Amino acid sequence: MLKKILIANRGEIAVRIIRACAELNIRSVAIYTEPDRYGLHVKRADESYSVGDDPLTGYLDPLGIVNLALQTGCDAIHPGYGFLSENAEFARICEQKGITFIGPSADVIHRMGDKTQARNAMRAAGVPVTPGSEDNLKDLDEAVELANQIGYPVMVKATSGGGGRGIRRCDSEQELKQQFPRVISEATKAFGSAEVFLEKCIVNPRHIEVQILADGEGNVIHLFERDCSIQRRNQKLIEIAPSPQLTESLRNYMGSLAVKAAQAVAYKNAGTVEFLLSGDDVYFMEMNTRVQVEHTITEQITGVDIVKEQILIASDQTLSYRQQDISYRGYALQFRVNAEDPKNEFLPSFGRISHYYAPGGPGVRVDTAIYTGYEIPPYYDSMCLKLIVWALTWEDAVSRGQRALDDMRLHGIKTTAAYYKQILQHPDFQQGNFNTSFVPDNMQLLQYSDKRHPSELALAIAAAIAAYSAA
Amino acid sequence: MLKKILIANRGEIAVRIIRACAELNIRSVAIYTEPDRYGLHVKRADESYSVGDDPLTGYLDPLGIVNLALQTGCDAIHPGYGFLSENAEFARICEQKGITFIGPSADVIHRMGDKTQARNAMRAAGVPVTPGSEDNLKDLDEAVELANQIGYPVMVKATSGGGGRGIRRCDSEQELKQQFPRVISEATKAFGSAEVFLEKCIVNPRHIEVQILADGEGNVIHLFERDCSIQRRNQKLIEIAPSPQLTESLRNYMGSLAVKAAQAVAYKNAGTVEFLLSGDDVYFMEMNTRVQVEHTITEQITGVDIVKEQILIASDQTLSYRQQDISYRGYALQFRVNAEDPKNEFLPSFGRISHYYAPGGPGVRVDTAIYTGYEIPPYYDSMCLKLIVWALTWEDAVSRGQRALDDMRLHGIKTTAAYYKQILQHPDFQQGNFNTSFVPDNMQLLQYSDKRHPSELALAIAAAIAAYSAA
Repeated sequence: MLKKILIANRGEIAVRIIRACAELNIRSVAIYTEPDRYGLHVKRADESYSVGDDPLTGYLDPLGIVNLALQTGCDAIHPGYGFLSENAEFARICEQKGITFIGPSADVIHRMGDKTQARNAMRAAGVPVTPGSEDNLKDLDEAVELANQIGYPVMVKATSGGGGRGIRRCDSEQELKQQFPRVISEATKAFGSAEVFLEKCIVNPRHIEVQILADGEGNVIHLFERDCSIQRRNQKLIEIAPSPQLTESLRNYMGSLAVKAAQAVAYKNAGTVEFLLSGDDVYFMEMNTRVQVEHTITEQITGVDIVKEQILIASDQTLSYRQQDISYRGYALQFRVNAEDPKNEFLPSFGRISHYYAPGGPGVRVDTAIYTGYEIPPYYDSMCLKLIVWALTWEDAVSRGQRALDDMRLHGIKTTAAYYKQILQHPDFQQGNFNTSFVPDNMQLLQYSDKRHPSELALAIAAAIAAYSAA
Repeated sequence: MLKKILIANRGEIAVRIIRACAELNIRSVAIYTEPDRYGLHVKRADESYSVGDDPLTGYLDPLGIVNLALQTGCDAIHPGYGFLSENAEFARICEQKGITFIGPSADVIHRMGDKTQARNAMRAAGVPVTPGSEDNLKDLDEAVELANQIGYPVMVKATSGGGGRGIRRCDSEQELKQQFPRVISEATKAFGSAEVFLEKCIVNPRHIEVQILADGEGNVIHLFERDCSIQRRNQKLIEIAPSPQLTESLRNYMGSLAVKAAQAVAYKNAGTVEFLLSGDDVYFMEMNTRVQVEHTITEQITGVDIVKEQILIASDQTLSYRQQDISYRGYALQFRVNAEDPKNEFLPSFGRISHYYAPGGPGVRVDTAIYTGYEIPPYYDSMCLKLIVWALTWEDAVSRGQRALDDMRLHGIKTTAAYYKQILQHPDFQQGNFNTSFVPDNMQLLQYSDKRHPSELALAIAAAIAAYSAA
């Protein structure tokens, strides 16, 4: 069993991993750059070390982090999500230096990170993939030729992309000619690789992903699916488990596909197999070889602690569960509360949180690293809080989400919380009837009033009067 | 369906009920006395009304509260627990004035509140009761005679008692002679009735209680049991669901007894049937005709929202569940975090909360009305926060409890949280092996260090240095 883990991350996911370590009686080590010196992960870890003044480089320095782990007596590194979590080089350095990387092998990360290789591996394993290129595209001419074969619209994608970036839709040859060099340029900048490929654009699909656990000894199980169709520009906003729009047979079929996908690459770790669903047609999209932001909702419906399982798997333990041990109960929703202003093109809204009070009561879970007085630094992801709700039925989960969003106090910055309340009131959402076009098709939901609850104003006035009278 | 509910309570249970109302789209009305003017229930309700300057009388005035409910257009009153929740007169006034009392009828409250009547009703229904008096005791002579028949130790109990008060154990005739007048005096003061009865003292029993739901139309179901054996002087400290020390057959037997008990009195509402368990011998103790402090852990394992069900039942809806719809999953523990100093005889520790930060992450639920800056008034119950944890296995639930207690920040007052961490580390507790003598038998658990986590001090020093350097 691992004894001491360095967490190569920050924010809520670092806190999440620290909690898993505490429950497993494993010592946790946090790292932080200067703007994060008052971060909650620094306060909650057993030990914390500065990795420099620059906001980012310390979190993105594979060799520096591995050396710090060795110096501080750690036997493992948990990469969280983002940052170095899908960096094969980082995993390779860990392997070379004798530190356990809590994730799959460097080879598997590399293979799944290369979308073209991943698609080919899936095709070979009998997992359906979107029609498209079997290899990276040589040039625009090849792209045009292929697009004419499979028909528009098509997607041009960065081979090394992820997180919804490096993707452009093209509805015509003209658009393809415009977008092709842009994706190459974006891919080069963001992922350090100019390789791109092309696939058929599945119009208005549902985004369904399956959580899997694999111990590297042949045991692979799935923990059912998450419906991440509520997205804006490929960024997930609200995630749901299980999908309210899946039949039990489709659920089981997709689960078995995900298991097949993991087996095909001898996977070891928690992971997610992302699919596009159009009607009953399933297409493999990509595999995420790390814990995901939305792993929480799967934990709520299955009871399985996915981060703990990652650590147990990395400790070379056999999976704690067989497939028949896993069942789901009720519905869970996760709201990604982002420090953004939805009424202003979702512009980031960093700054000081003047007041934060966690929502609570039945069926409410919060994963966050914010607190009253915390200053959200402008250098990182704008997601500042994950609000997760659970209830036995879909209807109750939706009304609980509304209540919990109302219950929360988060002042000083603009957030997406008020926008999510609008989504919850939409009949299509309430009926569990939505796909990835829900957000763009319902721009009117951004026309809500920004005003705070009138009872808050009344209370503020009453308090002012009381204070005045007492003076 | 009810439309607007007045909540005749304060603190966390008032907030809990407000949340249930919000999820059911029912308007909530809070009441508060002067010391509670900054109470969270006042901030969170849709409307709030002062019921006077005296800390208590406004919460204990049946006619005043019913009239306020009528004036503010409420169609129902939720009494919570404590205060007027088991006051038959209050329920009767509601009935007379045409306001729905969210609870059973005045007659049933009266009958179950009178422990002698309750025992007789249970005996008649075939629910086993502790050997003891069939009627209230006329005088000490009758008590002595009966005690000699059933054998010492015996318990003298106030017939109208509840909440663990008005109870004395007597190990000999001499003690009985001493305690008998004391219980009468206590009963007169606390419950306004001098009636007492006597029963055999079950030595070191486990306290097991079964949650039931009954719609008054013949549908009665149970939601399994809670183990409340971790008590100090009849006050519950840590509650557990399901009991880690019950066989499945005993579980089902006790569940069926609780259903029988509720059917015997044509019960309508959520309720709890409390039993003492000695070996496999089950004895009815009392029935609580209201929501209990520890209802939360049953919600965690069954997924049923008990407060919502109370409201639905009071709206004359048929039960949402049949017995076969109810199952339990995992283990839940509730820690009653009291504003008390365990190292000083659990003396109340009221005052201002200088810093509060809610624990979070997987399997953690918090029900509280405190916040940073909140001043705990000295007039009410010392319980200030309920921390509830859940996990699939008993072992994981215990380690999660430890983690969540560590995770919480609650400064400015003394609390019982540190003491609970000691209990969690005791091998007997960890093995699920305890009865009501656990707390008195383990006084050494109070010998813990009061010091805060060293990393907090280190951080405070680092922050001080940073501030000094910056100045």
